[in-house]
Amino acid sequence: MYVRNAWYVAAWDHEVTREMRRRILLDEPVVLFRTDSGKPVALEDRCCHRQAPLSMGKLVGNIVQCPYHGLQFDTTGKCVKVPSQDLIPGSARVRAFPVVEKNHWIWIWMGDPAKADPALIEDFHYLDDPAWRFGGSYLHVDANYLLVVEKYNWVWIWLGDPAKADQALIPNWWWADHADWAFTKPDMIPVKCNYQLIADNVLDVTHLAYVHASSIGAPSITEFPGTVEREEGLVRFTRWIKDRLPPPMYKEAGGFPGNVDRWQIVEHIPPCFTVNFAGCKDSIRRIDLMALSAPTPETEKTTHYFFGFTRNFGLKDPAQEERFSAGMVKVFNEDIPILEAQQRALDAVPGAARVDIKVDAAPLAARRMLQAMLEKQD
Amino acid sequence: MYVRNAWYVAAWDHEVTREMRRRILLDEPVVLFRTDSGKPVALEDRCCHRQAPLSMGKLVGNIVQCPYHGLQFDTTGKCVKVPSQDLIPGSARVRAFPVVEKNHWIWIWMGDPAKADPALIEDFHYLDDPAWRFGGSYLHVDANYLLVVEKYNWVWIWLGDPAKADQALIPNWWWADHADWAFTKPDMIPVKCNYQLIADNVLDVTHLAYVHASSIGAPSITEFPGTVEREEGLVRFTRWIKDRLPPPMYKEAGGFPGNVDRWQIVEHIPPCFTVNFAGCKDSIRRIDLMALSAPTPETEKTTHYFFGFTRNFGLKDPAQEERFSAGMVKVFNEDIPILEAQQRALDAVPGAARVDIKVDAAPLAARRMLQAMLEKQD
Amino acid sequence: MYVRNAWYVAAWDHEVTREMRRRILLDEPVVLFRTDSGKPVALEDRCCHRQAPLSMGKLVGNIVQCPYHGLQFDTTGKCVKVPSQDLIPGSARVRAFPVVEKNHWIWIWMGDPAKADPALIEDFHYLDDPAWRFGGSYLHVDANYLLVVEKYNWVWIWLGDPAKADQALIPNWWWADHADWAFTKPDMIPVKCNYQLIADNVLDVTHLAYVHASSIGAPSITEFPGTVEREEGLVRFTRWIKDRLPPPMYKEAGGFPGNVDRWQIVEHIPPCFTVNFAGCKDSIRRIDLMALSAPTPETEKTTHYFFGFTRNFGLKDPAQEERFSAGMVKVFNEDIPILEAQQRALDAVPGAARVDIKVDAAPLAARRMLQAMLEKQD
Repeated sequence: MYVRNAWYVAAWDHEVTREMRRRILLDEPVVLFRTDSGKPVALEDRCCHRQAPLSMGKLVGNIVQCPYHGLQFDTTGKCVKVPSQDLIPGSARVRAFPVVEKNHWIWIWMGDPAKADPALIEDFHYLDDPAWRFGGSYLHVDANYLLVVEKYNWVWIWLGDPAKADQALIPNWWWADHADWAFTKPDMIPVKCNYQLIADNVLDVTHLAYVHASSIGAPSITEFPGTVEREEGLVRFTRWIKDRLPPPMYKEAGGFPGNVDRWQIVEHIPPCFTVNFAGCKDSIRRIDLMALSAPTPETEKTTHYFFGFTRNFGLKDPAQEERFSAGMVKVFNEDIPILEAQQRALDAVPGAARVDIKVDAAPLAARRMLQAMLEKQD
Repeated sequence: MYVRNAWYVAAWDHEVTREMRRRILLDEPVVLFRTDSGKPVALEDRCCHRQAPLSMGKLVGNIVQCPYHGLQFDTTGKCVKVPSQDLIPGSARVRAFPVVEKNHWIWIWMGDPAKADPALIEDFHYLDDPAWRFGGSYLHVDANYLLVVEKYNWVWIWLGDPAKADQALIPNWWWADHADWAFTKPDMIPVKCNYQLIADNVLDVTHLAYVHASSIGAPSITEFPGTVEREEGLVRFTRWIKDRLPPPMYKEAGGFPGNVDRWQIVEHIPPCFTVNFAGCKDSIRRIDLMALSAPTPETEKTTHYFFGFTRNFGLKDPAQEERFSAGMVKVFNEDIPILEAQQRALDAVPGAARVDIKVDAAPLAARRMLQAMLEKQD
Repeated sequence: MYVRNAWYVAAWDHEVTREMRRRILLDEPVVLFRTDSGKPVALEDRCCHRQAPLSMGKLVGNIVQCPYHGLQFDTTGKCVKVPSQDLIPGSARVRAFPVVEKNHWIWIWMGDPAKADPALIEDFHYLDDPAWRFGGSYLHVDANYLLVVEKYNWVWIWLGDPAKADQALIPNWWWADHADWAFTKPDMIPVKCNYQLIADNVLDVTHLAYVHASSIGAPSITEFPGTVEREEGLVRFTRWIKDRLPPPMYKEAGGFPGNVDRWQIVEHIPPCFTVNFAGCKDSIRRIDLMALSAPTPETEKTTHYFFGFTRNFGLKDPAQEERFSAGMVKVFNEDIPILEAQQRALDAVPGAARVDIKVDAAPLAARRMLQAMLEKQD
């Protein structure tokens, strides 16, 4: 069961093109594409006639043509042509889902279209804001591009004359515009677990001390209790770690010689969004980071994980770039095996008893809020 | 649920040999082999003692010996030996299925043996008729034959003295007898969908305009409505496409300079047989083709597809041979991905609503006829 | 359903180390390791907090630390630390299973710990007895050892100075101590069938005549009826084959020129242990062998098969070594395909009728004894 009247991330902006793309979202097959003017469209990926996936068909202008019997649908999902007959049955349509492109992501509304208010989309402006340097999760590059270079953990492609593809021309920072080089955006991460296990993970920053001990974890995390606040549609966890050594990654990033005050402020907005505000400071230095998390359910047991992080320091420093791009991907890869093992254990013994402990306060508050949303929608 | 009192194709003739072959048919494990005099036999492939597959055992003359404890069964399925004891329990038998070899195919009756009348076997004499040139679907060759040559999309094997295996000796047409070369017959095609989806596909020739646009499809197909006739145990679909360009494959085959009259006459005989009579003519030229379709259920979601096509023109022309052998395999390969995607969509949402359109008249008539047969057998 | 108040083999001794090892036993996830003093420990491999597998965590001395949130458990399964809080909930514990190391195997008790009497462990002293030469089933070697040699079907590793790793130093028999060479013990065999099908197989030696005709089978087996005796917790099958040719493997091993008297005495102790006492003799020569079988259920459809064989002749003869090590693995590999096909047939038609024959007397007696144990434990 899912909260349907909510915005979810359906795709990265660069994933939606004039090639139709199939993606299962909340157990529904969806086909994503752009019109010839660039507007993203999401339709049910199952012909209303004989269930063939429309994504196997073709785009005729802005019309989707079924691969099997050639029925055609417009961007509202209405059937506009049935070969061999003039009358089009009124029931001949596929669902169209409201979509909005914002902050590099394509947002989709899987519930009642009348309620799809774009003002309800989570504020993830950090992904776009020039004051913040945005780094993504996994990197993906189309196999057709041959002139591809990995540097600073980004993938750079040369779209111009191959004879001029000198790697020395790769800029030291991506926002320094260079006419012939284009930036490839990061890709979605598939994870074989329920999306709520990811929300639990992100909301409970105690696990950093264990799962991420060599990067952003530190034993001091478990010394300081956190507080949990509940607001309308929001769970906030706050922990201040005062006068302790920073974790390895932050120490390097901020150049902290000794102890710091560190904060972990996590805001969770059900059904699935979380922003982790994190940082350290001493009397002279301060670094700020944010991790943005949008795990969209594919099925009850699999998730499309849209994930990014951003920072407001060292914007033009390639060493910082490398530290954070590579480092945060490593951090995330430390979580995946545990999340997937947890899902397998839950599948094996669905009703296994479980003991709750203090650090579960925030995840449990989030789950209760989700449960209330689910009950309310019935 | 299957129609049990009916003949199905169990195998190509060349697939049934003195090596036992296991095949699941209508959800039942069957072992197929030939007696030493060449008669095909089909027994339940599950020992009545401890369920070991008899096909893993061995043939002792015409007796099947279980691989595990050595029980022996004759071609009627009766147990004739139990090692370590003299008395054979009366219940010790496996099912024997009536089989008939006809028109290159081994036909099997999975229902009440008393009703297995060979006269009920579909008339697929075109497969044998010397006036017709028969081409099959996939080609298969035993891995043990080393002297194998692919030519004209057929596989030729040299059974004589290897020193004399000159490829120049391959005849330009298979029926030109050459003492040392033998012809390898085509193989069955496994498809991951219910057999009725294949029947729908074959009965609805409108899809040629979309799925097979580059070969046997033409936009004109959808201009001309077809008629559907129902007879006792037969659904016939007829469409005449008058005074239009032929599709690419027929145009080449018949050398038609301009417009033709084209026909599509499809006769479906439940539970699963279809003959498509097709062809084109202008005032001077005429070509005739037939596609023979016998999809035998393996399980509710998988099918053994026995398929062939035949023509009465260009019998001795290698260029025609190549055009049709290669071309028709290509046509079939265009259907498989859609059929399998359709099955996956049906599995994902079993009760999904579906809209019927005019071109469904023949497939729906066939499904109603099948449903009546299923209800009658209960 | 399993007999829970019984000892099962959980692992070979060499499989349990200071690296935690996960293994499913009787459908339960178990983590196996040794304390720093070498004592084997078995705990439930599922944290009581959020189900993460403890085997993905780490050993801190003799304490198991969960990979996710760092909860710690002692070797009794009691939680001794919850990070971020002082009070440990009384319900915070994982199951601990009694384990005993004996005769190269690690034995586990999955039922009521109060009833876990080590005196109830099957007497498999032949595995240790210097009067018997023990050979195992599959061989396994850690991928980290590079200096590995296969000889006499054993795997030898060199743990000393690589510059001195001369293969000529491999002794001709393993018990000849050589300081720098260590012996790698055999590994467990996973089989995709219920453990009772293995018990049936081992208890019914008639199948040797069919499945193992080229090694330890002989047609004469089915000539001589066997007797079945039932004692408290024991089924014994006895067959004497008098004055007949020995099977190929025994003939070679014993150098028998002509007929022998051969015995097959099989003692089965439910739920799953079997010793096959076998041998041949003529007026001058005699050979004795024992096959020890301990199939431990992983799930209802998969088994960890612990298996070994031993003999009291040719102890120092490399040719005999090779004959029996290689030969008995071959014999076992002849059984696996049939056992797994049998399981698939049972899965396909769970209630298929089956005919019992005389040779089933011992397996059926064993199954009845097991059934009585299962009913008694409820």
